[in-house]
Amino acid sequence: MKPQTATFLDLTRPYLAEVEACMRPDPSEHHPALAEAIDHLLDSGGKRIRPTIVLLIGTMLGADLERVITHAAAIEMLHTATLVHDDLIDGSLLRRGIPTLNAQWSPGATVLTGDYIFARAAQLAARTNSLPLMDSFARTLMTIVNGEITQLFEQEIHDFHQSYFKRIYAKTASLFEVASEGAALLSACDSECVEAMRSFGYDVGMAFQIVDDVLDFTGDQHEVGKPVGNDLRQGLITLPTVIHFQDHAQGKDWLRQLRQQAVRDEELETIIDQVRHSPAIDRSMDEARLLIDKAETRLEGMPESPERDALYELARYVVLRTT
Amino acid sequence: MKPQTATFLDLTRPYLAEVEACMRPDPSEHHPALAEAIDHLLDSGGKRIRPTIVLLIGTMLGADLERVITHAAAIEMLHTATLVHDDLIDGSLLRRGIPTLNAQWSPGATVLTGDYIFARAAQLAARTNSLPLMDSFARTLMTIVNGEITQLFEQEIHDFHQSYFKRIYAKTASLFEVASEGAALLSACDSECVEAMRSFGYDVGMAFQIVDDVLDFTGDQHEVGKPVGNDLRQGLITLPTVIHFQDHAQGKDWLRQLRQQAVRDEELETIIDQVRHSPAIDRSMDEARLLIDKAETRLEGMPESPERDALYELARYVVLRTT
Repeated sequence: MKPQTATFLDLTRPYLAEVEACMRPDPSEHHPALAEAIDHLLDSGGKRIRPTIVLLIGTMLGADLERVITHAAAIEMLHTATLVHDDLIDGSLLRRGIPTLNAQWSPGATVLTGDYIFARAAQLAARTNSLPLMDSFARTLMTIVNGEITQLFEQEIHDFHQSYFKRIYAKTASLFEVASEGAALLSACDSECVEAMRSFGYDVGMAFQIVDDVLDFTGDQHEVGKPVGNDLRQGLITLPTVIHFQDHAQGKDWLRQLRQQAVRDEELETIIDQVRHSPAIDRSMDEARLLIDKAETRLEGMPESPERDALYELARYVVLRTT
Repeated sequence: MKPQTATFLDLTRPYLAEVEACMRPDPSEHHPALAEAIDHLLDSGGKRIRPTIVLLIGTMLGADLERVITHAAAIEMLHTATLVHDDLIDGSLLRRGIPTLNAQWSPGATVLTGDYIFARAAQLAARTNSLPLMDSFARTLMTIVNGEITQLFEQEIHDFHQSYFKRIYAKTASLFEVASEGAALLSACDSECVEAMRSFGYDVGMAFQIVDDVLDFTGDQHEVGKPVGNDLRQGLITLPTVIHFQDHAQGKDWLRQLRQQAVRDEELETIIDQVRHSPAIDRSMDEARLLIDKAETRLEGMPESPERDALYELARYVVLRTT
């Protein structure tokens, strides 16, 4: 991470270690193979941006620290469980340069490990002792899974822009939303504040996914760990491609063919290169920046504190990051 | 079902319809393909014995009816979700004579549908508004999944009797336990009563699975919908086989070979026939009956009521049923 992200990490680093510890279930309660799988998954964990947001909002609003840590662990466990099943379904063999579980285990063992991690996430969510949080948590899992099923079954897309935003809400922003809303629910703040934090999570989550999708085109291949244009190679239409083709006479036809992976290899390479160097990249980033601007306004009424400063920083980091 | 089971069904029939309605998520909230899958799964549902127990205990103890119905729906949804993933992992194409989801859908769509039903179960559990119940619920899912993973990874079994009881606890009794304990938790009864109902669920659940495993050998092939000795054909060692071989000089070796499916076909047929006509069947049923006797003692201190009578009947039905 860049130096400008130092502060928000400094504030949460000691608590993040507690979140990590909290995520791991008691090893005496399950088979050693499961313990090994969970260790592997958590050791190869990503940026921990979701628990960081939970910790910052929770501490900013004076919520009980133990419950905040438990909620942060629940969110990251839910995220981890969805990745386990996603990688299996997509047949992905690497994530962040590390072999996925399905690259090493049978499909059955992988399904069950994902289920176990879901169960652990639900257990942690229950241990926050907040019924509204528990309800939001379950609803979010339904939203995430429904998004993936829609993607599998959707035969014809009429509005690619709308379909994209729906998909990234289900895939990413819904979890950022419950992370932020939940952290507020654990404090004594009023419903207006809970709503502001829910919106903050939504905006940051949507921006985070847009930037991810832009980086798929522009990121350093080595740093991102995937070939440039990987999404499009898989038939996944993201914002830069939608914008690139939106003023094109046969735009929709192109998008349909790309989605069906019905484009010849050389043509696909040309399109990836065109998108990569088109104004669609900047225009996608504009949409992300707009969301971050909105996210920042949600912070205005929050208590002045190092945590609030860190949340501003974190929001800006989302659109400045390069990996 | 036999006539002797009429009363306990009569008492709960009107509420069971409400449980069914409660299980189905609002169709506007998910993709039509999911709605179709959920309808298919619920329409081909089984005996609904778990929600029946919840309804009888809950109403016997005067718990709020709406919360009892929600809990019953959560339990049956959790049960349904585990079946969806089990059938996928085992490659089963039929359940109760009806095509499984994985017989019709891709593995990915099946995994996701199971996940969605898990999420719905968690949402219903949260809506019972009882944090201890929610915690037990999540722990039970961990127990069930850990049991399946243990079965996948267990290389050598030293004590087949103990391994069997551990497995059927994880697979079946743990859910009966949380069903019964949860119904008590929703009432105003004291911790002794909650504990009695938890034990009742444990005993009935263990007996239920033993009888299932006996019926795999003795049941009417047509009624059960599977060939006789199906478990053993799959390498699954259940109580009748364990008891049949326990006094046998090379008993453990036989059990190991059967488990590894390393026995020739004609030999396997002979063994199935031997177990089927051996005293091991009656001795297995004795163990189930002993558990039901214990379950009945848990009912002694409960309020005299038609519901308590129905629970006695239900317990006896578990060891009298033929399908």
